[in-house]
Amino acid sequence: MGRWEPNARGRLAEAALELYSERGFEQTTVAEIAKRAGLTERTYFRHYADKREVLFGGSELQDLLVEVIAGVPESTAPIDALAVGLEALAGVFDERRPFARKRQAVIAANPELQERELIKLASLSAALAGALRLRGVPEPAASLTAEVGVAVFKVGFERWITASDDRPMAPVMRELLDGLKAVTAGGDGA
Amino acid sequence: MGRWEPNARGRLAEAALELYSERGFEQTTVAEIAKRAGLTERTYFRHYADKREVLFGGSELQDLLVEVIAGVPESTAPIDALAVGLEALAGVFDERRPFARKRQAVIAANPELQERELIKLASLSAALAGALRLRGVPEPAASLTAEVGVAVFKVGFERWITASDDRPMAPVMRELLDGLKAVTAGGDGA
Repeated sequence: MGRWEPNARGRLAEAALELYSERGFEQTTVAEIAKRAGLTERTYFRHYADKREVLFGGSELQDLLVEVIAGVPESTAPIDALAVGLEALAGVFDERRPFARKRQAVIAANPELQERELIKLASLSAALAGALRLRGVPEPAASLTAEVGVAVFKVGFERWITASDDRPMAPVMRELLDGLKAVTAGGDGA
Repeated sequence: MGRWEPNARGRLAEAALELYSERGFEQTTVAEIAKRAGLTERTYFRHYADKREVLFGGSELQDLLVEVIAGVPESTAPIDALAVGLEALAGVFDERRPFARKRQAVIAANPELQERELIKLASLSAALAGALRLRGVPEPAASLTAEVGVAVFKVGFERWITASDDRPMAPVMRELLDGLKAVTAGGDGA
């Protein structure tokens, strides 16, 4: 990550996404991604463990979520801490909507990438549960809240990425959390 | 599935689980599984698409869940229909606790099997959302309820499988649904 490779991670991700969109995931090699980004294969593997990981940005989102949850005032209820965390994630995605849309099309076309995505979400849930336990939330509430958080994130992401307008993600997440409260309270979902 | 192969599916699953436990998933071949079950490789592939699928029983759980949800009285709230579905799944697992425990140890030791499990859960969620939409539950409530259902199932399964006593799964699920209501209503999880 020396200064002769400014933003190598981002350049590699952009190059990979371009190539995966043009030729397909299977037909692209790491050497080609590195070349397109003006970097070497060695640099690629310093940043990403394999061909899939470049689309998932390592543990960036997870780290952000854990940090944000840790910073929420102690008296905040778990579900409200979760809401703050989801809002922070939404901010990241809103900055990258075109990238996110293109990326989602690539993932939708490849079962291996879908598997990696599910693993990332499971890992996000585990990290979130850990962050909630650190705040003193007992089990099973910590794991439940974390799983529910990922559930809301999945549904919200899907709605945001397929929306015909450019509505930001944060209000989508807030609406879903309200919808969740209504549904768990026994509402009919309407 | 002729009468000369009674319970081929179950026998193959038992044989696979034994071999995966004894030698590890990677070290076991389909030929060995078929042999241990007293069946042929051809029969194996008539029942399961690959070496992983034998541990996941095809779409059995998903079909059960969809059927149960479809049979719940129309006036039932989505969250209560979900509760009935989870109870039905719990019944299946309680009948197979030793198998489920052994199976979980094998899955925990192998990332490929963990991936397949996550895919099965994602597919369970999609089927559940579909069953709820068929009952007239609108979106996003149907997807939210389905994702939340899978979230509760995951946490409940983990608690049930690691419990030191032989407590059945149904009351575990009921407690978690109550916990979920408390958490989403802004409780502190205690």
